[in-house]
Amino acid sequence: MFTFIENGSVTSVNGIKAIGIHAGIKRKRKDLALIVSDEPCNVAGTFTLNKVKAAPLLVSQELINNGGKVKAILINSGNANACTGDRGYDDALDSQRYCAEKLGVEQDEVVISSTGVIGEYMPMHILKTGIDTIVTQLKYNGGISAAKAIMTTDLVEKSFAVKVQLTAGEIIIGGIAKGSGMIMPNMATMLSFITTDAQIDNLLIKKLLLKTVNNSFNKISVDGDTSTNDMVVLIANGVSKISIEENSKDEVLFLEALQAITIEMAKLIVVDGEGASKLVTVAVTGCKTDEDANIIAKTISNSPLVKTAIYGSDANWGRILAAVGRSGIEFDPSKVEIKFDDMLILGKNYQHNFDEDDATIVLSKDKITISVNLNTGSGQSTWWTCDFTEKYIEINASYRS
Amino acid sequence: MFTFIENGSVTSVNGIKAIGIHAGIKRKRKDLALIVSDEPCNVAGTFTLNKVKAAPLLVSQELINNGGKVKAILINSGNANACTGDRGYDDALDSQRYCAEKLGVEQDEVVISSTGVIGEYMPMHILKTGIDTIVTQLKYNGGISAAKAIMTTDLVEKSFAVKVQLTAGEIIIGGIAKGSGMIMPNMATMLSFITTDAQIDNLLIKKLLLKTVNNSFNKISVDGDTSTNDMVVLIANGVSKISIEENSKDEVLFLEALQAITIEMAKLIVVDGEGASKLVTVAVTGCKTDEDANIIAKTISNSPLVKTAIYGSDANWGRILAAVGRSGIEFDPSKVEIKFDDMLILGKNYQHNFDEDDATIVLSKDKITISVNLNTGSGQSTWWTCDFTEKYIEINASYRS
Repeated sequence: MFTFIENGSVTSVNGIKAIGIHAGIKRKRKDLALIVSDEPCNVAGTFTLNKVKAAPLLVSQELINNGGKVKAILINSGNANACTGDRGYDDALDSQRYCAEKLGVEQDEVVISSTGVIGEYMPMHILKTGIDTIVTQLKYNGGISAAKAIMTTDLVEKSFAVKVQLTAGEIIIGGIAKGSGMIMPNMATMLSFITTDAQIDNLLIKKLLLKTVNNSFNKISVDGDTSTNDMVVLIANGVSKISIEENSKDEVLFLEALQAITIEMAKLIVVDGEGASKLVTVAVTGCKTDEDANIIAKTISNSPLVKTAIYGSDANWGRILAAVGRSGIEFDPSKVEIKFDDMLILGKNYQHNFDEDDATIVLSKDKITISVNLNTGSGQSTWWTCDFTEKYIEINASYRS
Repeated sequence: MFTFIENGSVTSVNGIKAIGIHAGIKRKRKDLALIVSDEPCNVAGTFTLNKVKAAPLLVSQELINNGGKVKAILINSGNANACTGDRGYDDALDSQRYCAEKLGVEQDEVVISSTGVIGEYMPMHILKTGIDTIVTQLKYNGGISAAKAIMTTDLVEKSFAVKVQLTAGEIIIGGIAKGSGMIMPNMATMLSFITTDAQIDNLLIKKLLLKTVNNSFNKISVDGDTSTNDMVVLIANGVSKISIEENSKDEVLFLEALQAITIEMAKLIVVDGEGASKLVTVAVTGCKTDEDANIIAKTISNSPLVKTAIYGSDANWGRILAAVGRSGIEFDPSKVEIKFDDMLILGKNYQHNFDEDDATIVLSKDKITISVNLNTGSGQSTWWTCDFTEKYIEINASYRS
């Protein structure tokens, strides 16, 4: 049992302070966020599979894999500190050390993360001055401000929290995220930072995060590109004193809530995808295995021809079936059924007697579900994608990411 | 030694007649093409890897795999006869049988091919009336007219021929092609029909076609989608009486010329890609293997973020390096060098001291080469792609393919 909290964020969680400020890495908008826990936190992370990894990502990945506790997460936008070589790596360590010093914690208690332009050195003087300021402004209700500060081409901040009723009492999960371009499946594919006051040990927290990310952030696509900086981090400070044990009923309840909040963030990333005008849920069922369904859903979600047809409200089931066909999965095309919302567009044996006008009405909505049933098994997978518009081209022809 | 023939086409080849007409499948433009050889031809074909295969493709694939000789190729545009079930398959056989009858040849001597809208039944009465007409209009110089008749959203016809000097004399290779949308690597990924008057046996013709397609049509990308109908067919009628033997010098000369004509057609398909404004050659070198280079070149060629940056004349080497990084190939990012034409954009150890204005000048040209050198081996691969523009979205949001 869980319920979403209105205006929820990472600071809806007990014992978590945060804030976002304008340090000056970007010209005008907020560009520096800090999340700090009163108590040391167990932590888990998932990281980009791109072979080119940004310096702060390498630093944080090593830190989290070492298995210690953390107290803070420092995130800047405007500069990715990626493809910056040894100097970039030294800068990342330096910012981590400086932030730890200002907070009075150990260097390896600070997770760091960056997003923004690739290939430029971090303006360290600006960042350090920003750190001087931000540590003095932390607030127990500053989560939404932090969510704003991690945005790049995002148009809206992504911030949620849920209240979860466990057997021993109530705990909170809060999260912020950023997305927009370069969104594509493969482990963590954007930035998200999630907090909870539940007590969860380091092994369990990893297992829960992996499961969750796999069914949320790993199932969205804006453009098929995977960034060098993407990560999802979950910290648990145990302030609620409510402990979650492996294989307990509470684990199931917690996972449900964690899944819900990550799916909400993932969907909002898609809705706010560069140039997107529609949220498209791609629900693939009836496959031999879940993995088959996953590959098919991913192929449909990444097809420019499907995404442009959705943009044009064109009931072009041929492009959807062609995408299934090139996914590499074996299937019988004559058994496939395709629906837009509840409307059958393609029946078995290629039947398609739908009314084009009715289909256009369904496709003109800003939220659409495409259901594809292969009718050959019980494997299934759901992805979320957006349509493909002129606006995407416009944004990416000019933005130096 | 080979030279391109001005206004060359499939009918530049001795003993080949062809023509394109308006049968009425499309509203106004030509939509039916026929290529006929005076003599029976050895034949080879490559076919889409999409699991959803159009009816005429299935018919022609079986025919060609059976290894007999062929005398004619019938192609219609405007209707793909794909996803049309048993009725579509019967229609395909019926059109093949009808065309053979009108030409006075055997049914299994006629290759058939379709391109256009998916999921609609072929208007057989229109097609048959068209066949009645087209067999009476064949000409020894009708190749370009045939090239026009196989176009869908193509803006220009694709037609070439080369004269090849072999040791025993001169032979000709001619070809027509269509492309535009749904262009992506994987065997034949569009339509192309190639003729030659050389004498080549059935085993060798297959080997030569596969090699050629792999380095031309399989290395282009417009949008990453693979169609249900794509095929490349090469027919050799032997009219020149000049025979090409395996492992001879002439085989090498012929392959060189065949490669040149298919690369020209492939490049023209990219240039004429939906909405494309620039031809981008992606030359990847210094990899451990050719296959590694191929995967990297393919990933760069399919990246919407790279393609939009090229459109915007933005020297965004970060997106190129990020694409290499997500290709799955192991490499050392600090060793990578990236050039736009001859201009070094990224040197080893992430050096990038180029002049942005100079880079913009290079990128503003309508033909650009991106060279990526991994500096770890001798593996290499070249692909051709186009930029990604608002026009692509516009075309595909409205066209029912």
